[in-house]
Amino acid sequence: MEQKKTKTRILERKNEVISGLKSFGTKLYDQLDQGVFPTINMPSRSTENINYDPVLRQFILGDKSVSRSARNIRHVKPFTQLAWAAMFSNELTTQRKTSTLRDVYYSAQAYEMTFTDQQESNNIITDLETVTGYSREDFNIFPEERSAVFGDLTIEYTVPGYEGRTMNLTSHPDGVLIGPALTSSEFAGTSADKVIAIEKGGLFTRFIEENVHRKHNALLVMTGGQAPRQTRQFIRRLHDELNLPVYILTDGDPWGMHIAMVIIAGSANAAHLRELNTPDAKWSGVWATDIVNYKLPTDPLDEVDIKRLYELQKDPRYKDDPLWQREIKTFLKIKRKAEQEAFSRYGLTYIVDEYLPTKLEETK
Amino acid sequence: MEQKKTKTRILERKNEVISGLKSFGTKLYDQLDQGVFPTINMPSRSTENINYDPVLRQFILGDKSVSRSARNIRHVKPFTQLAWAAMFSNELTTQRKTSTLRDVYYSAQAYEMTFTDQQESNNIITDLETVTGYSREDFNIFPEERSAVFGDLTIEYTVPGYEGRTMNLTSHPDGVLIGPALTSSEFAGTSADKVIAIEKGGLFTRFIEENVHRKHNALLVMTGGQAPRQTRQFIRRLHDELNLPVYILTDGDPWGMHIAMVIIAGSANAAHLRELNTPDAKWSGVWATDIVNYKLPTDPLDEVDIKRLYELQKDPRYKDDPLWQREIKTFLKIKRKAEQEAFSRYGLTYIVDEYLPTKLEETK
Repeated sequence: MEQKKTKTRILERKNEVISGLKSFGTKLYDQLDQGVFPTINMPSRSTENINYDPVLRQFILGDKSVSRSARNIRHVKPFTQLAWAAMFSNELTTQRKTSTLRDVYYSAQAYEMTFTDQQESNNIITDLETVTGYSREDFNIFPEERSAVFGDLTIEYTVPGYEGRTMNLTSHPDGVLIGPALTSSEFAGTSADKVIAIEKGGLFTRFIEENVHRKHNALLVMTGGQAPRQTRQFIRRLHDELNLPVYILTDGDPWGMHIAMVIIAGSANAAHLRELNTPDAKWSGVWATDIVNYKLPTDPLDEVDIKRLYELQKDPRYKDDPLWQREIKTFLKIKRKAEQEAFSRYGLTYIVDEYLPTKLEETK
Repeated sequence: MEQKKTKTRILERKNEVISGLKSFGTKLYDQLDQGVFPTINMPSRSTENINYDPVLRQFILGDKSVSRSARNIRHVKPFTQLAWAAMFSNELTTQRKTSTLRDVYYSAQAYEMTFTDQQESNNIITDLETVTGYSREDFNIFPEERSAVFGDLTIEYTVPGYEGRTMNLTSHPDGVLIGPALTSSEFAGTSADKVIAIEKGGLFTRFIEENVHRKHNALLVMTGGQAPRQTRQFIRRLHDELNLPVYILTDGDPWGMHIAMVIIAGSANAAHLRELNTPDAKWSGVWATDIVNYKLPTDPLDEVDIKRLYELQKDPRYKDDPLWQREIKTFLKIKRKAEQEAFSRYGLTYIVDEYLPTKLEETK
């Protein structure tokens, strides 16, 4: 039964997205039918309207809203662009074609819709996300970056030509790319009891070679630096749909720490969206205190690192959490950083044999 | 019969690599047995010893050589480092473990071997490539970057745990990652009659969605910008072992043009290696003349672009080829550049339906 419920989720969501776009269009037509200038209202994304919500444990938008009215001469251009973006997204979604932000910018010209530059068209897509509550990936607009996953999860494709086909994510030992086909797949079965997200490709490959997925019953996700949005959404689905705890391993520096934080608490840029972050995920290392405890080879923090640490110290996502505050303080005290590869000083498999089990236990 | 020959190639090469390392070690021991200070000779990689070979159509090293002698106090450190690197590479290769350049740097500390910095250890690995003639990927030292491939090619894995298992590269519609497991696979069968290498992930996905692999009997390779070395080596294998012509599609700018050139003629940095480039591969577009002929939306060339074009004009890889020279001149004349996505101005599938067939024919 539980399985069954999972299996229709993706197609349900696709239908919801298309309904969302349709209802956006219907509102415009209804206003026209009533003989009024159509107007679009949406929450403001200006900095002063972005607040951290300690209950949701992510950034959200406040009460301020903005409107785009066809009546206002200054609004006519963005109003039209937004209506076009909705129409184009509807085409992509119903025809199951994928696209990129760059592609959207050029595609507009096929409709004699003009954007001054890429930034303007990106903004309009974000407007569409804000109005509808869906992410651009739901409209089949994907970034170029691809990360990967490996482990015992069987997926069932929903993309054209592959509907109903299944694949187990241990099929390819280099890892399976997280692209549009993977993220639109249903989860058909797993024996895993946790997710381990890893910042770097080299370590991801080491984990596969050393059978971490089997030894720890884990799905391994390579984020490839800052995790692309569809990968963050995928991690959230692994957590929500399969009930799996998520552990994150990054480099031991402010940037690695923040890669983990964005997976956990999201970013201010995505305050208008839900389901891109996983509040229950844990940052398992490399902590500043690990650098000390494991006597890791280090590099000095440079000025940019230190400036970043002071910024993060005041960031609402970090502010009230004793773990993160302790780690920031330790970084500032030792003034050193260490990469995940630094564990190789104890041999190539030390990180898998010693460090990982300890940290999984510690952050459980 | 032909099939059979292909199928043992990878394991043969692995054995050759291990023999190469062994013979390097044997030479050192023999010298010690003869009571002389061991010396290592190798071709010099200094700029004045790098020449373009118009027959091989790639850079090669000239006659100058350098030596590292245990007798010379200034040589003792790099000599020892090189001997260690050979020993460590032998461990990786025989134990079938993969690593990264960063990992090698830290692993040295496990052996109390010190490198001043990453650059020093990278250099020593390049020395080892030069001495043995094998690439670091042959020693299982891989870069972090991963690109992808898609199409009807069945591979047979040779990595531990997957030996003898086959996979068809149409299995995952997001594309199959080109990592250590893929590049060490045998080619077991294909119906493809060409390879199309594509610079960008978005277009790669579009090509898969639009069935370019089927319509054109093609294997599609995503380079993800500048193709990682293992991807260039993989393209060469597709060409040599399967006899497939290779076509390359990049952005229409000096950087895209050079991505194609590095796949074709290699780089000066790899002058000590063979089999990383595919001299018969063709750059099919986006040419500067395509920008004009297809009236593509463009951006102006900036100063860096123009400077780069003047550099490339004098580069030996470009110098005597009328096609490349014509395109460089056209870029300098129109002073504009265009991305692959620019074709979307004629609709999302124009590049697949119109541009691609024309250019494949034109560059046959």
